[in-house]
Amino acid sequence: MSPQIPETQWAQVIEETGGEIHYKEIPVHKPGPDEVLVNIKFSGVCHTDLHAWQGDWPLATKLPLVGGHEGAGIVVATGELVEDVKIGDHVGLKWLNGSCLACDFCQQSDEPLCPKPQLSGYTVDGTFQQYAIGKAAHVARIPKELPLDAIAPILCAGITVYKGLKESGAKPGQWVAVVGAGGGLGSLALQYAQAMGLRTIAIDTGDEKAKMCTELLGAETFVDFAKSSNVVKDVQAATPDGLGPHAVLLVAVNEKPFQQAAEYVRPRGTVVCIGLPAGAYLKAPVFESVIKMITIKGSYVGNRKDSAEAIDFYARGLIKSPFKVVGLSELKMVYDKMKKGEIVGRYVLDTSK
Amino acid sequence: MSPQIPETQWAQVIEETGGEIHYKEIPVHKPGPDEVLVNIKFSGVCHTDLHAWQGDWPLATKLPLVGGHEGAGIVVATGELVEDVKIGDHVGLKWLNGSCLACDFCQQSDEPLCPKPQLSGYTVDGTFQQYAIGKAAHVARIPKELPLDAIAPILCAGITVYKGLKESGAKPGQWVAVVGAGGGLGSLALQYAQAMGLRTIAIDTGDEKAKMCTELLGAETFVDFAKSSNVVKDVQAATPDGLGPHAVLLVAVNEKPFQQAAEYVRPRGTVVCIGLPAGAYLKAPVFESVIKMITIKGSYVGNRKDSAEAIDFYARGLIKSPFKVVGLSELKMVYDKMKKGEIVGRYVLDTSK
Amino acid sequence: MSPQIPETQWAQVIEETGGEIHYKEIPVHKPGPDEVLVNIKFSGVCHTDLHAWQGDWPLATKLPLVGGHEGAGIVVATGELVEDVKIGDHVGLKWLNGSCLACDFCQQSDEPLCPKPQLSGYTVDGTFQQYAIGKAAHVARIPKELPLDAIAPILCAGITVYKGLKESGAKPGQWVAVVGAGGGLGSLALQYAQAMGLRTIAIDTGDEKAKMCTELLGAETFVDFAKSSNVVKDVQAATPDGLGPHAVLLVAVNEKPFQQAAEYVRPRGTVVCIGLPAGAYLKAPVFESVIKMITIKGSYVGNRKDSAEAIDFYARGLIKSPFKVVGLSELKMVYDKMKKGEIVGRYVLDTSK
Amino acid sequence: MSPQIPETQWAQVIEETGGEIHYKEIPVHKPGPDEVLVNIKFSGVCHTDLHAWQGDWPLATKLPLVGGHEGAGIVVATGELVEDVKIGDHVGLKWLNGSCLACDFCQQSDEPLCPKPQLSGYTVDGTFQQYAIGKAAHVARIPKELPLDAIAPILCAGITVYKGLKESGAKPGQWVAVVGAGGGLGSLALQYAQAMGLRTIAIDTGDEKAKMCTELLGAETFVDFAKSSNVVKDVQAATPDGLGPHAVLLVAVNEKPFQQAAEYVRPRGTVVCIGLPAGAYLKAPVFESVIKMITIKGSYVGNRKDSAEAIDFYARGLIKSPFKVVGLSELKMVYDKMKKGEIVGRYVLDTSK
Repeated sequence: MSPQIPETQWAQVIEETGGEIHYKEIPVHKPGPDEVLVNIKFSGVCHTDLHAWQGDWPLATKLPLVGGHEGAGIVVATGELVEDVKIGDHVGLKWLNGSCLACDFCQQSDEPLCPKPQLSGYTVDGTFQQYAIGKAAHVARIPKELPLDAIAPILCAGITVYKGLKESGAKPGQWVAVVGAGGGLGSLALQYAQAMGLRTIAIDTGDEKAKMCTELLGAETFVDFAKSSNVVKDVQAATPDGLGPHAVLLVAVNEKPFQQAAEYVRPRGTVVCIGLPAGAYLKAPVFESVIKMITIKGSYVGNRKDSAEAIDFYARGLIKSPFKVVGLSELKMVYDKMKKGEIVGRYVLDTSK
Repeated sequence: MSPQIPETQWAQVIEETGGEIHYKEIPVHKPGPDEVLVNIKFSGVCHTDLHAWQGDWPLATKLPLVGGHEGAGIVVATGELVEDVKIGDHVGLKWLNGSCLACDFCQQSDEPLCPKPQLSGYTVDGTFQQYAIGKAAHVARIPKELPLDAIAPILCAGITVYKGLKESGAKPGQWVAVVGAGGGLGSLALQYAQAMGLRTIAIDTGDEKAKMCTELLGAETFVDFAKSSNVVKDVQAATPDGLGPHAVLLVAVNEKPFQQAAEYVRPRGTVVCIGLPAGAYLKAPVFESVIKMITIKGSYVGNRKDSAEAIDFYARGLIKSPFKVVGLSELKMVYDKMKKGEIVGRYVLDTSK
Repeated sequence: MSPQIPETQWAQVIEETGGEIHYKEIPVHKPGPDEVLVNIKFSGVCHTDLHAWQGDWPLATKLPLVGGHEGAGIVVATGELVEDVKIGDHVGLKWLNGSCLACDFCQQSDEPLCPKPQLSGYTVDGTFQQYAIGKAAHVARIPKELPLDAIAPILCAGITVYKGLKESGAKPGQWVAVVGAGGGLGSLALQYAQAMGLRTIAIDTGDEKAKMCTELLGAETFVDFAKSSNVVKDVQAATPDGLGPHAVLLVAVNEKPFQQAAEYVRPRGTVVCIGLPAGAYLKAPVFESVIKMITIKGSYVGNRKDSAEAIDFYARGLIKSPFKVVGLSELKMVYDKMKKGEIVGRYVLDTSK
Repeated sequence: MSPQIPETQWAQVIEETGGEIHYKEIPVHKPGPDEVLVNIKFSGVCHTDLHAWQGDWPLATKLPLVGGHEGAGIVVATGELVEDVKIGDHVGLKWLNGSCLACDFCQQSDEPLCPKPQLSGYTVDGTFQQYAIGKAAHVARIPKELPLDAIAPILCAGITVYKGLKESGAKPGQWVAVVGAGGGLGSLALQYAQAMGLRTIAIDTGDEKAKMCTELLGAETFVDFAKSSNVVKDVQAATPDGLGPHAVLLVAVNEKPFQQAAEYVRPRGTVVCIGLPAGAYLKAPVFESVIKMITIKGSYVGNRKDSAEAIDFYARGLIKSPFKVVGLSELKMVYDKMKKGEIVGRYVLDTSK
């Protein structure tokens, strides 16, 4: 390990679920044989981090826990088996910090379904610290010309919506409706969709979001679900033949849209669920679903290849993601805003402050 | 038109929804330029025919109506544009009597999704008569060596389950669970699955069905949903790695299995809905569906190519379908038994009696 | 038939293969029950028309013959079975004038593989006349706001390259090399590729073509096969990881590129053959092809759905196709230029002159 | 490391390409952190081993070299990072001993295309020794009830043909022709094909092979390429509609069949190349390949998932593979027979002799 790696570092640590968050100095660990140590420069803050802290998901976290899973930084040490990642490389640590790479799912490039995953900021320490560890085979490669603060949100939100669009099976020239289009995931989804040659219908509410979606983000139509007297008709009317979009991407945080999408999607179309409203159910009438031969499917983060592709679209300048940088020490303030629903765009933590 | 075609024929006719069924003589019609006239020899009786009579589906039938959509017979006249079908050919008339062959769906071989279909025994007169008309491009070709009584049920039930298996995406060597395996559709599904190289788990109830499914129909495991204390665990345990079947085929007629399948299907697996329990809903928890990346989809009858393939599997001797022949004049008796749930296997009507 | 349809019309007629082309008046025919009569306004001239005239392809033409298969016009009469196409609709007549719609291939939306096709300007009279007949199920629908002269070349060249790109399996964000990028098919291919989210490498020769491909048509790299000392290396170097393009589209008219593409395509990549150099052979070393798991495939025109999609991309303003309009009477002059290789862009005939 | 692992072992060692093969005692090595040490019980002998020894392939081997890549044995030691493989597990070492698991191809489950692979018996020591090392993530899992001698040939030949059949895209009920059906790979291909629901045409020569293919191995037709006056017609005639097989699997060792398959494969069909005749070329006429839209592709070994599936088909008793066991010490004799073309079935070496 090279001399400039310090013995200790600053980190945000939770000792018990829902308890205090401590900003304090902790030891820097050494990477294992197949791991790398990353000097995290910036880390995005995601809703999942809030769930990890509050402990309101069915799966328990490690404790004490350093949260965070959208970390971008520079490799400072590598394990003895690591060949492809070099000291000095720019990399990202994602939700999927590691997986077994040998199970039935990993063998099929479905690492997110690995039954023994390492999850950053959940089952292993994450990116709310200055030096974090990641499995070498899983770190995302970041071209050196990209800014490390701006890329951070792509590492989770960007990858997730890009994967959802791939899973939708929609082909260039076809239509996709994005439900929750004005939010963080939604605005990324609109941009990725267009970069993939898809045509978009934005579904959300409010004049500000309408303007943003159509004027800035390229949606061809905006359907305001609060103002529309018939969302199903309005969404279908947005496609030239009136048969509705070929795919629907659900990134909303409430349940109703999950049950409405099956009605306006085109026959043979696909509804992709990405958002995770607590306790929500997919529901669709059997008769219409069969007669229309629709598909409803879940899409969960992305594998390593999806990640590389999502970063590549960003690197080509096709995706803009608004963010605001504050110090790592201010994490508590970000969570407070998040709980109050006051966040527009993404907060990114600078680990040097 | 050749001289031996009579002016009149025997048919079963409904004059009003839910009213009397009249067994009487009616005129024989001439085929249009793109149609053929088929001397129906045998016609299966399906639950859909009962729905057509009772009028309890959202879509209205033509009236007066000759029902029936599993008819096998011999071509006796052809329209002026018909080239490929010849007088003397053995053919089947199916639920999809015709479609426009030009719309967005027909262009993609999804004729069942055509918005202007002709439906046998529903929107056009069907096969409960001695001479029925079908669109030449849509009649199923039946090899002359096959018995016309035995093939009749394949023309609806066989095609439907075969299509469902194709839609499941399950590959040779993978596992598929059939829910309602002991019924008419289910027992065909088990046989088609095995002919396609799939391994099967039968889900149903009762010792008689257990024996039939495993000893006669080749299922490797039978899970009795009434006796099992934990259907989800039992179904998953039936696969060697305990992760559950790659696909689930829902041919049951009640709602519960539609909501349970999402729990035991393997991550990345597919649940295919085929059965149409009245008023039923698909329902699945969003969180688990996303995390497991499962797919739920509807499958509706089959296109012309699916039909030809399903008949080919049958022609090779790989599919057995028990049936009982009675006269066309006895249709009312069959409906009575059907309403009482007393039918095992398929009833097939002989139009000469 | 409405009164304004004349009894006779002007047409370009060949009476024997390779013989004189006669510009003369011939009768206007009536459409059959499943056909439409189209008042052709404009017709593109394609190399295939020259082959039809010269008779140097293995397949014989009808005689006498009216050539042409890129006709755009207005429906003036419809057969009795035609429901979806109306008098006054704007439509296109393509190479595939009709197909049986019932064979194994038509059942799978592979109409171009139908063993009994009607081929415009080859086995049936084509679009070098003022009133041409087409099968209603096969005519391409043209939105009324599109100019009928500009759309003509899309009806053959556009559809063909778009289909080739679909067949390549290349996904948005991936790389495709177009061999013969500076020609008519090639320049359309570059534009379709980019509209589909693909990144392009243009392969051709000459500074003028280099400039056109990169500055006008959006190619990211131009490889001049005449100047390059190592085409394989240069093409591979054009992709960021040096592994070569995911797909190669061969629209060139000589044989060599067909044998070189297998060398520079990426492992698991696909080489799509579209161009038809006379007597040419695909050739690739078995060892490298197996070790790299490459795919080589042929792509032939497009089906009706491909056609509708290709027109839709054009209608959205994403495709530009340079063309020059002359009178129908001037066809001989166009052929003369074509034989001398003097044509840049497409010639389109105005049937009113 | 447990005490019963000896310090030295018997092995077959080559010190220079084409030189003597030495049967001698060499040290037993320790596995690295991500590796396992396998007590090889049996190892098949493949043509590739002969190429490695003779050095007549473009790629150089390590030297000195222990050959062999079809080894079945028992894990006796595991590296510190290995979790899923346990001491006592039965495993197989394959041609692909390891790969980086992180490159673009490994990320997409195409480990065989990894640019930095470890190849057993070629770039790392293989299975012609009593204790061989393999990457834990790559060893094939063998159920304990399977005989280790019989499974050995499946680890290379079985996996390779199974993968080729998957790559062909042929679906249950469709036809596949196997060229070289009477050989080692071919006879496995016929059996796998049928287990996958495919129908088979065997192409080879000689009455003995004809009998074996049709009576023992389930081929529905045998075409003797030496006796047939028109192989193309005969192969096409073997399919009921005369259009030819949907796929062709080329496992032959000479060039001609590689050039003939494109002629008899069905339009839209796929020709898969597996065999590697030295210096051979794929060759197909451009015109017919485009018009028929055929696909020609290479298939190379199989990934880990393919391997597990191929073993599973074997474990279910669906595949028989004739083999003959001799001592490890007799390798030279096996090579001699191989060079003379005297081998029928597979030779398997018992490492205890």
